[in-house]
Amino acid sequence: MFKKIAVQGNAFYSENFDNVKYIKNGLFCIDEKGFIEDVYNKTDKNYEFVREKYLKHGKLKILSKSEVILPGFVDLHNHASQWPQAGTALDKPLEDWLGEYTFPLESKYKNLDFANEVYTDIINATLSYGTTTALYFATVDREPSVLLARLCGEIGQRGLVGKVVMDDHVANPEFCRDVSSIEAVKETEKFIEEVLKFKDTYKQKIYPVITPRFIPSCTDKCLKELGKIVNKYNIHVQTHCSESDWEHGFVKEKYGISDTEALDRFGFLTNKTILAHAPFLSDDDLKIISKRKSSIAHCPISNAYFANSVLPFKDFYTKGVNIGMATDISGGYSPSIYSAIRQSVISSRMLNEGVNPSLQFDKRGRANSAITLNNAFYSATVGGGIALDLPIGKFEKGYAFDAQIIDLTKNIPTYYPEKNETDLLHKILLLSESNNIKEVWVQGDRVK
Amino acid sequence: MFKKIAVQGNAFYSENFDNVKYIKNGLFCIDEKGFIEDVYNKTDKNYEFVREKYLKHGKLKILSKSEVILPGFVDLHNHASQWPQAGTALDKPLEDWLGEYTFPLESKYKNLDFANEVYTDIINATLSYGTTTALYFATVDREPSVLLARLCGEIGQRGLVGKVVMDDHVANPEFCRDVSSIEAVKETEKFIEEVLKFKDTYKQKIYPVITPRFIPSCTDKCLKELGKIVNKYNIHVQTHCSESDWEHGFVKEKYGISDTEALDRFGFLTNKTILAHAPFLSDDDLKIISKRKSSIAHCPISNAYFANSVLPFKDFYTKGVNIGMATDISGGYSPSIYSAIRQSVISSRMLNEGVNPSLQFDKRGRANSAITLNNAFYSATVGGGIALDLPIGKFEKGYAFDAQIIDLTKNIPTYYPEKNETDLLHKILLLSESNNIKEVWVQGDRVK
Repeated sequence: MFKKIAVQGNAFYSENFDNVKYIKNGLFCIDEKGFIEDVYNKTDKNYEFVREKYLKHGKLKILSKSEVILPGFVDLHNHASQWPQAGTALDKPLEDWLGEYTFPLESKYKNLDFANEVYTDIINATLSYGTTTALYFATVDREPSVLLARLCGEIGQRGLVGKVVMDDHVANPEFCRDVSSIEAVKETEKFIEEVLKFKDTYKQKIYPVITPRFIPSCTDKCLKELGKIVNKYNIHVQTHCSESDWEHGFVKEKYGISDTEALDRFGFLTNKTILAHAPFLSDDDLKIISKRKSSIAHCPISNAYFANSVLPFKDFYTKGVNIGMATDISGGYSPSIYSAIRQSVISSRMLNEGVNPSLQFDKRGRANSAITLNNAFYSATVGGGIALDLPIGKFEKGYAFDAQIIDLTKNIPTYYPEKNETDLLHKILLLSESNNIKEVWVQGDRVK
Repeated sequence: MFKKIAVQGNAFYSENFDNVKYIKNGLFCIDEKGFIEDVYNKTDKNYEFVREKYLKHGKLKILSKSEVILPGFVDLHNHASQWPQAGTALDKPLEDWLGEYTFPLESKYKNLDFANEVYTDIINATLSYGTTTALYFATVDREPSVLLARLCGEIGQRGLVGKVVMDDHVANPEFCRDVSSIEAVKETEKFIEEVLKFKDTYKQKIYPVITPRFIPSCTDKCLKELGKIVNKYNIHVQTHCSESDWEHGFVKEKYGISDTEALDRFGFLTNKTILAHAPFLSDDDLKIISKRKSSIAHCPISNAYFANSVLPFKDFYTKGVNIGMATDISGGYSPSIYSAIRQSVISSRMLNEGVNPSLQFDKRGRANSAITLNNAFYSATVGGGIALDLPIGKFEKGYAFDAQIIDLTKNIPTYYPEKNETDLLHKILLLSESNNIKEVWVQGDRVK
């Protein structure tokens, strides 16, 4: 039986940070494992021959002119467990948001029925917005965290999931913390082993992630032991880093060094490490992160609520740090990476221009800070792939076929051909809603 | 025949700037003209009696528990004619955006077929996001501007429409300007007369608006004559005011006074005047505007692209100026007032906290600038009604029944009762898309 498939249609992807590639009526050939085997342009001499082969076997999916393919998005930071409170309490100070809302909610996942309901829903919600890969914080409890990983596998999303470590008895309430630092590490290893057992049973694979919530919620003892595990398993790591004045200051006060330096000393910074937020990094921090090839998860919406500042995206990128895009459910209210893309451009422009009209123009902003929509698109696709060290985010040979098929007949005004293809991509990025993301594919399989 | 109708269900509206009112299972009685005749709470002693009366006549619409009614939104600034380019070219400098994209597009509306297609579409697009009242810039050409007004009437949106005045031969390209200052004024009067003729034939009414694009695009002669027309007709006025460093500086240089002072001297500031953008107002400007009872149309998305700053919403409101919400299609890419609400809160927080993490906390932001989601909701409903001097934006006796019915089963995670009703409203405001805005009503009639 002929098990391969091909998709024929118009597609966009990021060629590099600044430029987008448009393939008109391309032929994307996908192998049995869901990887792109070949991409043919209309002008390639084999185009018709190959096309005919797939057509003959009933394995050619032909898109219409009003459909466009984009790479699936990568969400680099999402507290899946906070989904039930998305959009609430963002007017409140962080302490209330955590104490009254977040921690009580995260403690509910011991109930696996509840976990099953919420996690199924957030996976489907993010998929419906074209998020084909997601890096999730679950909760402190192991069992529901394993369940989240399994559900990603079953539903078909490329999930990277962490059981959250938060063992400090002063920083965390009794109902939502690890029993002890020793238990925290044991449970983490057990979590990793359990997920590794079924990791490869799913075509798109599922990955366990070492997840210290952030330095302020963990003891030194625990962080030291966790650092060793990073080395032992060589798997992904995620945590928060220099998110706000408060967090940044807390670590400085505790250790006399920056958050980044401290995380590095504990052994957390690898080429598979994702640091969420991180607006307060110094140039020295950037050097360390760039050397370790770690990445930043940019959370533009939640930063507006809890980070006291805007990530200097352009500056950090220029200094060699890779940046992916993230929703940060539920510090960010939207499960859509489209929303993050939009806000990232707007926030960068506000950093560039400044915000306070009472200041003189030249005192208001921070020059060279604006990113383009192309930059943000790169970050949400290629940047995410680099961050996770996975072959995703492009339509090129060897990449997983993770894709979203956009229906141009809804939400997007198209009255005449755009001046150039990039204009059309920009309309798609700025105006799409879940109802015109018609199909979503992960690793060669349709999941929406 | 019994011509009244009643709607029974859960509803939210703004009681005042800070507080939201929740009516559980209320009964909203609507008269023949589409105004709210009475609102009954479940506890009112006549509730059952009145309910029975409507039920008996087959005139009671009962909403389910998974539906919630919000007031329709007011969009105070929308260039309907720019809809075809929404979401494009926002990375470009203003000159290119205007010269290469906007002016050539606006000149196409002489073709009434094109105008008919686009205007029908933008009215339906904004309606689909719950915008029941919209203040539109059409284009410089009279005929298509009248057509936009008629289409609002026919489709059922409360439209306020202006033929754009832009007569300066240096500032505007030949293919997109008034023939002369005299013609500009003549055409404006003709436009007003034509719209006034059919204004009252529509239940929700349609309003002509005097619309000098902004001072830099008009001659003094024209502005003087237009100012007289404001007085003659006592109708709405809309224009741009102190939008950017450039515009603010241009008027200062030309007249030696601020944009606001200049507009006031020409006679444009009344209690039915809406000034778009306006971040650069001085305290003296605010006093004038407050005295004239004019309002600001807040365009948070487009401000991020073209205004070089954030509107100090809280400060201006505190100083007595009314502010409504606006999409500013297509300087803003989204036709949804939901998007404007979300960005207005985020922008205000960025003004409050500051954006540049390299600055010390106390040097970074502008204190007391953050607005709440409740404030933004007020602005999008009640604020818009005050700006237009129309009885819209509340579910109270004497107000038009302009409403959107929200379907809570889509997009919005609801796993257990929220801690309080406001949390539910916030989820609706932050997570809704057009597909869960199930029905839209204008002046007592369903239009979506």
